[in-house]
Amino acid sequence: MSEWLTDVGGPGFAHTYRIDEELYRGRSDYQEIRVIANADFGRMLVLDEAVQTTERDEFIYHEMLAHVPLLAYPAPRRVLIIGGGDGGLLEEALKHPLEAAVMVEIDRDVIDVTRRFLPQIPGGAFEDPRTRLHITDGIRYMDESAETFDVILVDSTDPKGPAVGLFAQPFYAAAQRRLSADGLIAVQSGSPLYQQDLIRMVRANLGAVFPHVVTYLATVPTYPGVLWTFTVGAATDPAAVTEEMVARRTRGFGLQYLTPVIHRAAFALPPFLARDLGIAG
Amino acid sequence: MSEWLTDVGGPGFAHTYRIDEELYRGRSDYQEIRVIANADFGRMLVLDEAVQTTERDEFIYHEMLAHVPLLAYPAPRRVLIIGGGDGGLLEEALKHPLEAAVMVEIDRDVIDVTRRFLPQIPGGAFEDPRTRLHITDGIRYMDESAETFDVILVDSTDPKGPAVGLFAQPFYAAAQRRLSADGLIAVQSGSPLYQQDLIRMVRANLGAVFPHVVTYLATVPTYPGVLWTFTVGAATDPAAVTEEMVARRTRGFGLQYLTPVIHRAAFALPPFLARDLGIAG
Repeated sequence: MSEWLTDVGGPGFAHTYRIDEELYRGRSDYQEIRVIANADFGRMLVLDEAVQTTERDEFIYHEMLAHVPLLAYPAPRRVLIIGGGDGGLLEEALKHPLEAAVMVEIDRDVIDVTRRFLPQIPGGAFEDPRTRLHITDGIRYMDESAETFDVILVDSTDPKGPAVGLFAQPFYAAAQRRLSADGLIAVQSGSPLYQQDLIRMVRANLGAVFPHVVTYLATVPTYPGVLWTFTVGAATDPAAVTEEMVARRTRGFGLQYLTPVIHRAAFALPPFLARDLGIAG
Repeated sequence: MSEWLTDVGGPGFAHTYRIDEELYRGRSDYQEIRVIANADFGRMLVLDEAVQTTERDEFIYHEMLAHVPLLAYPAPRRVLIIGGGDGGLLEEALKHPLEAAVMVEIDRDVIDVTRRFLPQIPGGAFEDPRTRLHITDGIRYMDESAETFDVILVDSTDPKGPAVGLFAQPFYAAAQRRLSADGLIAVQSGSPLYQQDLIRMVRANLGAVFPHVVTYLATVPTYPGVLWTFTVGAATDPAAVTEEMVARRTRGFGLQYLTPVIHRAAFALPPFLARDLGIAG
């Protein structure tokens, strides 16, 4: 019998993946890092038993966390990414005509392991002359840096260990001070089926700092429950983008998930989720 | 350690559910029927180890298989449901001002077990004076009946055992003969991640009979991979429905998943799925 990896959603639900091969297993200063091969998803990056990204579906999460917030800003020049060590989000962000993309990742081993076993996820993003990489804690960076950004993207693990502070109000307040006028922050905010308390907390903490808090959806096949949320804190409504603008500003990006219709629908939560999360329809 | 139920997606992927209580387990003439209780989804109906419907999320599948095709027909009066023994689809269809809803279910035990353990799924649908229930094989009914319908809905299990013929061209041809002019058929057509061959087969078999074949998406949390497809065979384009019309014709239905924006987006397949399934974008 093969070994299977179990990635937990709620108390009574999990995804499970057959491990056809284990390509890497090691412990960094922060977490256990594994790369496994799976019949359905190819190579998969796993941190502390939670699937982070896979060869087959990585573009969905990365397109949706990069482009939806970047499209909400008229002409973003400077982007900050907190986390996202696999480089997939960085690669998507760099499709925009940016001047600089600063990435702050706490765990150098995640970057090294991804570049060795999943090099197509970052592509050439780490070599892009616009990229500046800092290996440090995102909370410390946010407190100590004096730089400003148009868009901040938080691609974190779940709120455990060093990621806890990335979901807290002080971090969002520090982020707000690093944003240009009309700048915005977008964060991965968990499963709308299994982490409703987390989403409510993120929305409350962002809402203490930003006038507009908007949660949007994507379907990520390798996250437990597949339905996934991202939440934006902004000075203006990030959903106020026309389909024509989405089409124009993503032309030539070669997107495999996001289209103008999907962009619009991402903000249209089904009524049962809006009700569960206390979001006005 | 608790017992878990495993519901397989692809060769390397499955959903798994903790069984907190087993309320029913029996074998009908056609399949094993179980009702289990689960922390995340409440009571779950399971046929041959495949989750069919649950207390928490049943409305998503049923709303999407009932209303999307019914909205594509101007004023449906007569509906035929093949399968759907839990009655959830019947309940949704009856929200429209129909004259008759005929339901053909092969396995009486599915109906009886659902009514005993999950009575809120059919609600009062089986007692509705417009409902006519036949306990027989859907393929035989389609061949022998002389009735005509505006919309036919096929709520079947996966193509195994007696359900195999429900995905085959002869059945679709027989269905076409039972449809009124401009009538349409909609079928559950499986996972776009794990059953791409099935979807291609359904589309080819429907395409041999109907000029328009359109696949649309929903997110069903308890089907493996959550993303799910339905495919329509029709004389005219079933997506040609305005958002205003969706809003008007579903007013008062109390829908928990389907909204006008979600209706439109259901037809907008992400590019990677359209490409995998050979569907023009």
